[in-house]
Amino acid sequence: MVINEEARKIIHGKNFAFIATVNADGSPQVTPVWIDEEDGYLLVNTVIGRVKEVNTRRDPRVSIAIADHRNFYRYLYVKGQVIERITGDRAEEHIDKLSIKYTGDKFRWRRPGDRRVVLKIKPVEMKLSG
Amino acid sequence: MVINEEARKIIHGKNFAFIATVNADGSPQVTPVWIDEEDGYLLVNTVIGRVKEVNTRRDPRVSIAIADHRNFYRYLYVKGQVIERITGDRAEEHIDKLSIKYTGDKFRWRRPGDRRVVLKIKPVEMKLSG
Repeated sequence: MVINEEARKIIHGKNFAFIATVNADGSPQVTPVWIDEEDGYLLVNTVIGRVKEVNTRRDPRVSIAIADHRNFYRYLYVKGQVIERITGDRAEEHIDKLSIKYTGDKFRWRRPGDRRVVLKIKPVEMKLSG
Repeated sequence: MVINEEARKIIHGKNFAFIATVNADGSPQVTPVWIDEEDGYLLVNTVIGRVKEVNTRRDPRVSIAIADHRNFYRYLYVKGQVIERITGDRAEEHIDKLSIKYTGDKFRWRRPGDRRVVLKIKPVEMKLSG
């Protein structure tokens, strides 16, 4: 799916994404995350074992709303599927990249035992609202 | 469920809520909404026929993340159930109340044929993060 220039601006701006997944009992779950994009795929970096990570192992379908922080009435809606999970050094380097985008500094909140994973999300539907 | 003072501040601040529901095919859906609270229930005002409204008629379970606009790393997570749907004049008055909270003015975006509904949500779990 081609991501157009307007959508790209929202994704690459310092905007938070709210990612929804489905719990084991079929109820919905939503959390704010940092968001990145490479080659038309959305990238979310999380810790192995977190609810959204466990949920997407069972059901890879996600929905993401990314609100433009300069105008909250404008947001990008993305429906997608987690098609790959990247762990190890690449995931650790990626959280630094994201942290620099959002905070200006490398990631400083590592906790002992945390193993990071990048959820690589293929967009299947995308809509800019507002 | 008692909503504590910290949670109440986030709900009653000019903070956007991201509400997740589940689609007919079991995939998750998420949209930004204005949020209100009365007597321990969360209130979301939408239009009859919108995806989230239709979804909650089929499955009343929702999840809501409300990010503090002054500090996005702080957010209130709420799991809840739509236990009542309020339509008619009360829903029309309520959208004005919400609009005044968020924009300072009465609601100006009514479209012909729109019938509004307040989703009254009973929180079953609530957590303040960040």
